[in-house]
Amino acid sequence: MALCRRYIDKDMNCCFNRATSPITDSSPYEVRRAQELNNLLGPKGSTDAIDLICDLHNTTANMGLTLIHYTTSDWVTLARTSQTKITKVPVRVLVLDFPISDAYNFESVSRHGFSIEVGPQPHGVVRADIYIIMKEAVDLTIDWIHKFNSGTVFEGGDVEAFKFIKSVDYPRDPETRTLTSAIHPQLQDRDFCLLMRGDPLFFTFSRETVKPLYDCPIYPLAHNVHWNGQMYFPSQKKFGW
Amino acid sequence: MALCRRYIDKDMNCCFNRATSPITDSSPYEVRRAQELNNLLGPKGSTDAIDLICDLHNTTANMGLTLIHYTTSDWVTLARTSQTKITKVPVRVLVLDFPISDAYNFESVSRHGFSIEVGPQPHGVVRADIYIIMKEAVDLTIDWIHKFNSGTVFEGGDVEAFKFIKSVDYPRDPETRTLTSAIHPQLQDRDFCLLMRGDPLFFTFSRETVKPLYDCPIYPLAHNVHWNGQMYFPSQKKFGW
Repeated sequence: MALCRRYIDKDMNCCFNRATSPITDSSPYEVRRAQELNNLLGPKGSTDAIDLICDLHNTTANMGLTLIHYTTSDWVTLARTSQTKITKVPVRVLVLDFPISDAYNFESVSRHGFSIEVGPQPHGVVRADIYIIMKEAVDLTIDWIHKFNSGTVFEGGDVEAFKFIKSVDYPRDPETRTLTSAIHPQLQDRDFCLLMRGDPLFFTFSRETVKPLYDCPIYPLAHNVHWNGQMYFPSQKKFGW
Repeated sequence: MALCRRYIDKDMNCCFNRATSPITDSSPYEVRRAQELNNLLGPKGSTDAIDLICDLHNTTANMGLTLIHYTTSDWVTLARTSQTKITKVPVRVLVLDFPISDAYNFESVSRHGFSIEVGPQPHGVVRADIYIIMKEAVDLTIDWIHKFNSGTVFEGGDVEAFKFIKSVDYPRDPETRTLTSAIHPQLQDRDFCLLMRGDPLFFTFSRETVKPLYDCPIYPLAHNVHWNGQMYFPSQKKFGW
């Protein structure tokens, strides 16, 4: 809190894929804490695990309100409920579709976990608009849980979601590993918008536009312009339930 | 760099008002470094000080390109030059008008120092648009210095600037000192825009609008929504040279 950062040494929210690895003297503090939480609320992947963990995040990326899930088979009704009720901002569903053993986030400990990611908001800053969006998303999630628990029947349907394909690093100097480019201004803040083959992607610090040619001719994009960040390429899919 | 923060313990750029205080065993590292820089490039306020330090900053506030000066008597031509040549973003001049002994920033060590502040850009993030603005501002400043040094005569005129009046803290819980409000969404990102008496200023986390009544009936506002930040109230002025 004093340093106004999410974490100092190790991101605990990336430790839950090792939540059952043996602890050694050299295990970082965050790995130990992740195991404690897994023992308390999990164990992950077991029938003893608690029903739902909803992890709240914010990001500097212009992601609007994004619900992040690990599977394509379990999350649909929750996602659908939130999508239809929050209309002030774009609401997207992002499916990572990792095997549960590779899922590194806290919410993967629970049986039906998901996270709510809201942005853009700089680190160390609180924006009232972002606060309001997150508050509404949490309130609607709790409302939905109450309805579910009281026996409400939800109709089937389908939902559009973005499915994670791959992450790529930003261009770096091969020797020093320092960044040589930022997101191209034409693409900045256009998370989840369609990017066509040959569209500007990066802008080098020597002021050149980079237009890489990827295998996939068109795809939407969610990017994260942190110095230490990566870029994520999801594709749009439709799922039914 | 590893922590992706501007500073860890003490902001060296707030140490130059004590650049001539006696050093003791308990003096922080940054105060010592500030004194070294003052000895090297100053001493501040003396005729031996170097001509110009231009300090480059970025901020999460939506300040566009802002030139920050310490006096109302020396900075006008530089400011004017930049103002007329950079047209892609709003360019403002902010005058702190502190006595030189109270000036805490690095550029106050030089005889004609000023800083270039560009935003919005989150900490730890590089945006190409912000990079381009800063690069142009620096290039134009260097061009102007070359012209000045080669004997170019600049015509007189006047310039609109914002003059610092006061800073205020965000509303906090009187006991815990934690924040109880953020900037009101209607005001968010409207730095330097006119704020009328009674306009929404803060938005509490219990979702209430706060409309404080200040002495000044109307004023522009530059705000900085850091958890540890303050809000600045400048007023618009016109200066001639």
